[in-house]
Amino acid sequence: MPALPDLVCSECAAIYPVASLAWRCSCGGLLDVVDFVLTMDATALPGRSPSLWRYTEVLPIAVDLTVSLGEGFSPLVPSRAFPHVQLKLDFLLPTLSFKDRGAVVLATLAKRLGVTRAMVDSSGNAGTAMAAYFSRAGIDCTVYVPESTSPGKLAQMRTHGATVELVPGSRADTSAAALLAAGQDGVLYASHVYHPYFLHGVKTYGYEIWEQRARSLPETVVVPVGNGTMVLGCYLAFSELVAAGLAERMPRIVAVQASACSPLEQAMAQGLEAPVAVQNGATIAEGIAITAPPRGKQLLRAVRATGGTIISVTDEQIAAAHRELADEGLFVEPTSAVSFAAVRAAVDRTYVSDSPTWAVAASLLTAQFVVVPLCGAGLKSLTR
Amino acid sequence: MPALPDLVCSECAAIYPVASLAWRCSCGGLLDVVDFVLTMDATALPGRSPSLWRYTEVLPIAVDLTVSLGEGFSPLVPSRAFPHVQLKLDFLLPTLSFKDRGAVVLATLAKRLGVTRAMVDSSGNAGTAMAAYFSRAGIDCTVYVPESTSPGKLAQMRTHGATVELVPGSRADTSAAALLAAGQDGVLYASHVYHPYFLHGVKTYGYEIWEQRARSLPETVVVPVGNGTMVLGCYLAFSELVAAGLAERMPRIVAVQASACSPLEQAMAQGLEAPVAVQNGATIAEGIAITAPPRGKQLLRAVRATGGTIISVTDEQIAAAHRELADEGLFVEPTSAVSFAAVRAAVDRTYVSDSPTWAVAASLLTAQFVVVPLCGAGLKSLTR
Ligand SMILES: [Zn+2]
Ligand SMILES: [Zn+2]
Repeated sequence: MPALPDLVCSECAAIYPVASLAWRCSCGGLLDVVDFVLTMDATALPGRSPSLWRYTEVLPIAVDLTVSLGEGFSPLVPSRAFPHVQLKLDFLLPTLSFKDRGAVVLATLAKRLGVTRAMVDSSGNAGTAMAAYFSRAGIDCTVYVPESTSPGKLAQMRTHGATVELVPGSRADTSAAALLAAGQDGVLYASHVYHPYFLHGVKTYGYEIWEQRARSLPETVVVPVGNGTMVLGCYLAFSELVAAGLAERMPRIVAVQASACSPLEQAMAQGLEAPVAVQNGATIAEGIAITAPPRGKQLLRAVRATGGTIISVTDEQIAAAHRELADEGLFVEPTSAVSFAAVRAAVDRTYVSDSPTWAVAASLLTAQFVVVPLCGAGLKSLTR
Repeated sequence: MPALPDLVCSECAAIYPVASLAWRCSCGGLLDVVDFVLTMDATALPGRSPSLWRYTEVLPIAVDLTVSLGEGFSPLVPSRAFPHVQLKLDFLLPTLSFKDRGAVVLATLAKRLGVTRAMVDSSGNAGTAMAAYFSRAGIDCTVYVPESTSPGKLAQMRTHGATVELVPGSRADTSAAALLAAGQDGVLYASHVYHPYFLHGVKTYGYEIWEQRARSLPETVVVPVGNGTMVLGCYLAFSELVAAGLAERMPRIVAVQASACSPLEQAMAQGLEAPVAVQNGATIAEGIAITAPPRGKQLLRAVRATGGTIISVTDEQIAAAHRELADEGLFVEPTSAVSFAAVRAAVDRTYVSDSPTWAVAASLLTAQFVVVPLCGAGLKSLTR
């Protein structure tokens, strides 16, 4: 079995073996995976199973068939409302959100390293994904979640046997509680924000778009952004595809926040290098209500490098997009509707007209080809 | 576009064009699709998209890309508990149940026929599937459901814009209410029980098993049975594959009921040609609590023809199987756990030892290869 690629600090370039279970550099910097990508064997793809493991050459770890649930290769279908838009049904993964892409990689890693306990903090979907995959891998899992987490997601976690720690207060309070507990000996902090192997699982989303569009990339990808795992996963995939000569150019990444909680949009509009923490506004897009995204600097850099931008939509626009997607036959979480809401606003010209980021976004979202991910199933966030 | 195959009465052989919207013969007999199957072009399969429409040559209608949501080709993964068992994750379809396989065919049919209104009765999952696909097809849909239907399924239907008629009483009362409303001019009764095009959508489940197992069929397939759409779909697929020379022999079909509502098991044990209606016992397997399955005679004949049988498991066994599947990383509806419960009982020899049907089933369920479908997502049936 090939060796597991190390982790490298994005600030001071210190190297950590992944077996150390390091999740942040001693200098405080974020960790990435060292450059390890082998060139994908594109000719071998047609004969492979339709799961994310078909991109094995560009993943940091090999599939473990006792852990995998066949995740990946979600459908890409045309939008009925917008002829230039394709919708990627990434809620059709085993725990009904795109987080399974990263969770299966971390559970596979944990099993290979012989870890017996893992912990994670989440607004919900990462927690349900980790609960399922760590259970399948036979590894104890504790999930820290805000006490406001949807009952459906809590039921998923508990049914999978995870220990659920309900943390009073905001999503930020949950992260703080998890950081206190992280770093115990022998426990993997399976963070979808900090652990960079997670992002390499998520990047398969971008490879699938490329393959499903007859091996070409769209002009624009418009994704919800909170902690930014989807943005960074897309950026990784698109960069690698261009570097390997498999695509001609990067798509523009348009990242979308809820206007009630939009530190990244503000940083983009003001030309800042890093976001400034905001007060947590209440939003129906619970999955992206992140006041101080740890990878904010990387996110801004990635989006700018593609010529994209970061915008926001209101809860009213999100709710309308949620209904419109249901008309199209797609019942998703409100968080999943923010991208569609952005396209609707761009097409109808109902965006905030003096916003510098919307000025850029409006043309990108009406460009020839736009891909919109639908990240979580609607049943996950029912509040009854 | 090829003509749409007609419907034929299973009792008197009368022929009805599908455009007549007939759903039952004037003699009272059930309708099937006339023999229409073209031989599948197995050499073309590897180049096709992983959706159920890859089996286009054996489907009664061509794909409509404005209706399809990319449904089908759900993962087939090994069970952790049973090395001889593979689990088919058929809850990973767009509305989170296998019913999408038939619903997309009926919605495609309705659109092609120019129908503007449809109605259906359901214990829940067929209703959510029809609500989504008819909404995507731009067709009004009314769904009759028992008032006890899970709130999650009701939320799905209503979000998709369906008119939901809550019927007091049992599932049988719901069917009776629907039958009163069926047959209005120009309205398609999109019944998953009566309309035989539905079964030809469901049969793609069997083709996928064949293809995913390197073009071979398992010894045994063990499926939940209420109205029997999954049993009849499997039977169609396996018969067609054998007739086309693509498989050597039929798998044995072991159908599983909840012991609280098991008319088919009783008929099988007593050697009857048709089931006798039972009183509706309460069971957590709400999706298969059918007291008088209209296609009961066909079901018994199909299962017998494969050398299979029909058994039942208790709610206690179902609940235990539901937890065990969650340990394997799979959170499903209780109804989806009945097959796994049957395998567990066979392996542990905890079945009713003097049951004539269990005597047959026990050896089939411990045979070399067994496939178990997981038909509906766990979030669909939360009762909070
Ligand atoms: Zn450092
Ligand atoms: Zn007849």
